[in-house]
Amino acid sequence: MSLNTSARGVYAIAPTPFHADGRIDHGSIDRMTDFYAEAGCSGITVLGLMGEAPKLEPEESVAIAEQVIRRSTLPVVVGVSAPGFAPMRRLARRSMESGAAGVMIAPPPALRSDEQIVGYFSQAVEAIGTDIPWVLQDYPLSLGVVMSPGVIARIVAEIPSCVMLKHEDWPGLEKISTLRSLQATGRMRALSILCGNGGLFLDLETGRGADGAMTGYSFPEALVDLVRLAAAGERDRAHDLFDAHLPLIRCEQQPSIGLAVRKYLLMRRGILASDTQRKPSVCLTARAIAEIDYLAARLARHDERAGVFLQG
Amino acid sequence: MSLNTSARGVYAIAPTPFHADGRIDHGSIDRMTDFYAEAGCSGITVLGLMGEAPKLEPEESVAIAEQVIRRSTLPVVVGVSAPGFAPMRRLARRSMESGAAGVMIAPPPALRSDEQIVGYFSQAVEAIGTDIPWVLQDYPLSLGVVMSPGVIARIVAEIPSCVMLKHEDWPGLEKISTLRSLQATGRMRALSILCGNGGLFLDLETGRGADGAMTGYSFPEALVDLVRLAAAGERDRAHDLFDAHLPLIRCEQQPSIGLAVRKYLLMRRGILASDTQRKPSVCLTARAIAEIDYLAARLARHDERAGVFLQG
Amino acid sequence: MSLNTSARGVYAIAPTPFHADGRIDHGSIDRMTDFYAEAGCSGITVLGLMGEAPKLEPEESVAIAEQVIRRSTLPVVVGVSAPGFAPMRRLARRSMESGAAGVMIAPPPALRSDEQIVGYFSQAVEAIGTDIPWVLQDYPLSLGVVMSPGVIARIVAEIPSCVMLKHEDWPGLEKISTLRSLQATGRMRALSILCGNGGLFLDLETGRGADGAMTGYSFPEALVDLVRLAAAGERDRAHDLFDAHLPLIRCEQQPSIGLAVRKYLLMRRGILASDTQRKPSVCLTARAIAEIDYLAARLARHDERAGVFLQG
Amino acid sequence: MSLNTSARGVYAIAPTPFHADGRIDHGSIDRMTDFYAEAGCSGITVLGLMGEAPKLEPEESVAIAEQVIRRSTLPVVVGVSAPGFAPMRRLARRSMESGAAGVMIAPPPALRSDEQIVGYFSQAVEAIGTDIPWVLQDYPLSLGVVMSPGVIARIVAEIPSCVMLKHEDWPGLEKISTLRSLQATGRMRALSILCGNGGLFLDLETGRGADGAMTGYSFPEALVDLVRLAAAGERDRAHDLFDAHLPLIRCEQQPSIGLAVRKYLLMRRGILASDTQRKPSVCLTARAIAEIDYLAARLARHDERAGVFLQG
Repeated sequence: MSLNTSARGVYAIAPTPFHADGRIDHGSIDRMTDFYAEAGCSGITVLGLMGEAPKLEPEESVAIAEQVIRRSTLPVVVGVSAPGFAPMRRLARRSMESGAAGVMIAPPPALRSDEQIVGYFSQAVEAIGTDIPWVLQDYPLSLGVVMSPGVIARIVAEIPSCVMLKHEDWPGLEKISTLRSLQATGRMRALSILCGNGGLFLDLETGRGADGAMTGYSFPEALVDLVRLAAAGERDRAHDLFDAHLPLIRCEQQPSIGLAVRKYLLMRRGILASDTQRKPSVCLTARAIAEIDYLAARLARHDERAGVFLQG
Repeated sequence: MSLNTSARGVYAIAPTPFHADGRIDHGSIDRMTDFYAEAGCSGITVLGLMGEAPKLEPEESVAIAEQVIRRSTLPVVVGVSAPGFAPMRRLARRSMESGAAGVMIAPPPALRSDEQIVGYFSQAVEAIGTDIPWVLQDYPLSLGVVMSPGVIARIVAEIPSCVMLKHEDWPGLEKISTLRSLQATGRMRALSILCGNGGLFLDLETGRGADGAMTGYSFPEALVDLVRLAAAGERDRAHDLFDAHLPLIRCEQQPSIGLAVRKYLLMRRGILASDTQRKPSVCLTARAIAEIDYLAARLARHDERAGVFLQG
Repeated sequence: MSLNTSARGVYAIAPTPFHADGRIDHGSIDRMTDFYAEAGCSGITVLGLMGEAPKLEPEESVAIAEQVIRRSTLPVVVGVSAPGFAPMRRLARRSMESGAAGVMIAPPPALRSDEQIVGYFSQAVEAIGTDIPWVLQDYPLSLGVVMSPGVIARIVAEIPSCVMLKHEDWPGLEKISTLRSLQATGRMRALSILCGNGGLFLDLETGRGADGAMTGYSFPEALVDLVRLAAAGERDRAHDLFDAHLPLIRCEQQPSIGLAVRKYLLMRRGILASDTQRKPSVCLTARAIAEIDYLAARLARHDERAGVFLQG
Repeated sequence: MSLNTSARGVYAIAPTPFHADGRIDHGSIDRMTDFYAEAGCSGITVLGLMGEAPKLEPEESVAIAEQVIRRSTLPVVVGVSAPGFAPMRRLARRSMESGAAGVMIAPPPALRSDEQIVGYFSQAVEAIGTDIPWVLQDYPLSLGVVMSPGVIARIVAEIPSCVMLKHEDWPGLEKISTLRSLQATGRMRALSILCGNGGLFLDLETGRGADGAMTGYSFPEALVDLVRLAAAGERDRAHDLFDAHLPLIRCEQQPSIGLAVRKYLLMRRGILASDTQRKPSVCLTARAIAEIDYLAARLARHDERAGVFLQG
């Protein structure tokens, strides 16, 4: 299962499950891996920013990637972003040897000019090896690195092993249209585009030519349905479903606190045993939890998969 | 009508209407001013960031403020943020002499430490005069300046003329709770808190103790209703209304392109004659307009005030 | 005297002289204008960042530019950077009609990608008119906008009226070499490159192909001599002179406080009547003044033009 | 040898020596450790930002710290900054068990408000243990975190194990004076203040009350002499020495390329076997090397410790 430019659907950005004392929770990893497959996802991405990757030790990162790959019936993408190329290479090659479908690389925050950006990814791919299919992560809000459609097209042209864009620019709709137009007019080769940002614009992104989503929203089934409905031309139904989830999507999409919301919801859904994050981290107050519960109970009226919150 | 700490409800952040050639559109200013009153707003704020204030000449700023103040039956707040204190003072005093209720000041982007922030506002208020009631604008996403509850409490304590917080931190719910708790325990005097961010969390902010909203969403009537329903304890109905508007609120809340969406919707609603922005600016593509029209037509099914979009 | 790509030598970045009460000091403007010519400068640049341009009213900016142009025997460049294109155009055209040699434009801080940068300058030049020679200001430390040699070459290629680069990247030596190499191999047309950063690397920049300096160091005669010595191949003597000035150059090159140092030195040299800055501003403490006096007195042992500080 | 508030003199920020293939060069580590003692340093700091710490594996960091501690006759400070508290604790405790004198912690780049800053260090110290003396790193240019004297005083008051400030604010002279004034008036307890920024203002910092330097300039002997001369009241001689080194100090103090200059000079001085950095990294061009050689040869005329460059 090697990642390629025809990837579509929903790739779940997996959180890293911890026990209350901060140890990795291997039981929850298996449960979560199974859950994503049952939810209809097309793939799983581990060790992303939302996976608290920078707080893991190298051996932990390898262990998590290997466990998910072993357990999963879906292709697994492994986030390998690192300040140095040597550990990036090590994690990338270990993951591929263990059966990963590809890796994901985010640009370091210091990059500014197109030249710096293209140069960085060229060197990174030289470091990990040109045989590993990889996902280009484009997340300016969090990383501060802005990639124009032109620089993405240059990366895609110069580095054949780039097969997918994890698109989470904001605003980002025109970027998808521009990239698809570059592709349609032969100025860029094919590229899978999966959207992030927690799904906050997925209702519109599908209409712009996105192939789906790569994000960690705690109800991935809804994203799967949304992508399917959009592909089937059921625009109104897709929006009806999306609108029911939007109040919660918005809560998960907040900086810093968003991961706490996401882990809490996954815990309440029975997928994670604990919503613990490694420190330093931000916790939900009782007030915040009550708000999330209320919004999730409202969602349950439209989507039975939130049923657990009705009694909550 | 002097602004004070008991202000509540919805203060509309007014855009600046331009003709297609970039001249100020005085006819639309009057229409817009009337519209906000009819919409049930409690006040109007002109010359904010969303009012394209940095693109106006000093005499234009004065003229716009004076026209809205003259026309309005509601209290008017005038944004007076400026790189130099002399022009800040001039606009502030001219506005107050013309009948403004107060002014609003945003911190310049370079401020970082609490000391720098408190120092800046102390000097600014010394410059404009301690007799002018003013609104503290807290907008980290756009300005890059982070104000903790503690630094807000210090400003409120040290500068008696500060009567209101325009709160648009993100995430921001805990900040409201913390400020209200400081107030309840006597560690901060009373302060009006109106929320911005286009209303993206207004459904929850009212429950945290916000007094309402100060934002520019193109359906201010909905925000007025929401604040009223929340105050009346009609929580479910408030959320029902909010959820219907959230897909559009989210579109207006995008950086850079959000103002184009807002001006377009206000134009379609017949309030602005043109959705022109002064250059440099970002325009909506035909594709983006079609998406907005579609979302607004969906809204019309729940809120008749969007009825104009049904035939669109 | 129209600015063109053959400009060389030292263009003085002029501060804006104020009286102690913040009014513009026209007497000092004339004295300063004369001083720069006597110092051997090749040109004068007014209304730059160090000229406190954002704190001036539009009519003041025009008046300052016109006074310097009228008085000066040297070509005058006018900084026209502004948040809106309409005022940028107005100041640019007024200045050229009054006899300016050209204008200078800095990128707004929000720009990130090459596309955004090239697009901004294209639109700006469309706004001011393609007939006005202009200087591209490249100052990442202060503006946060990073321009690679490639994006500068694109701007130069696409916009014929760009005749000069005000280079103040840091580190910046390789950028000069790269640009000159692009030029030597026919991949970029001729461009004047004058260096900023207070002259902090001017000793080395001349060896890399810079045509001189555009900066505001309070001893412009020293920069003039340095550029002349370097051009004459007197490398050691150029460095000897530079090294004597470096302790002071370093002090003027500090963010925020640097302008206070510069204005103080120009006041002590008898050029400005007052070292007042418009508020908000940072002032020198007595301790800081004593340090500057000490360093300037040390300089006087090597350069008699600092003689006034020996009795200080 | 436990670090305490009476520390003074020069603490050398040690680079991490690598072989040309990126492996750690243990021979150079020993040579470098001995060199710093011979140079008259008072201590050594390993695994700082300039030590390429983020590019090291955890076991490598431990090994480097242990080797330097074992070899050194001077107190050793270990940089333990990390995205997660668990690895921070592990490295801190392992280092102290091996004989480190203390650790150094830099704030993560996202911190803005005083509250966030104080909160972060409180949690970090809770994580590593309150028994470990630590150095507060204040480096806004590189980290983007601004700490006012007030917030430093709060940290010092609330966290007794904070014994030293590594001061590298820019401009930073007034900060030293303010801290010493807080101390003199009993509003802050004693604190060692060692200055960084490559020594760029060390000539003036000693006069403001700094206890010395903690920086990595490749001629630490010169900094040792400077601190000694300043302490002995030999102001002119201190400045004479400083001025001779300033042209090179300035080159090492550049962002990104500065470390390449530093490693090159240490290699040419015979201390490092190679100037290799781990990738991604910036390299010196032949042109840049020639410039450094020339400046170092000029230095040799004033300071015989640069003699090796005379024949270069």
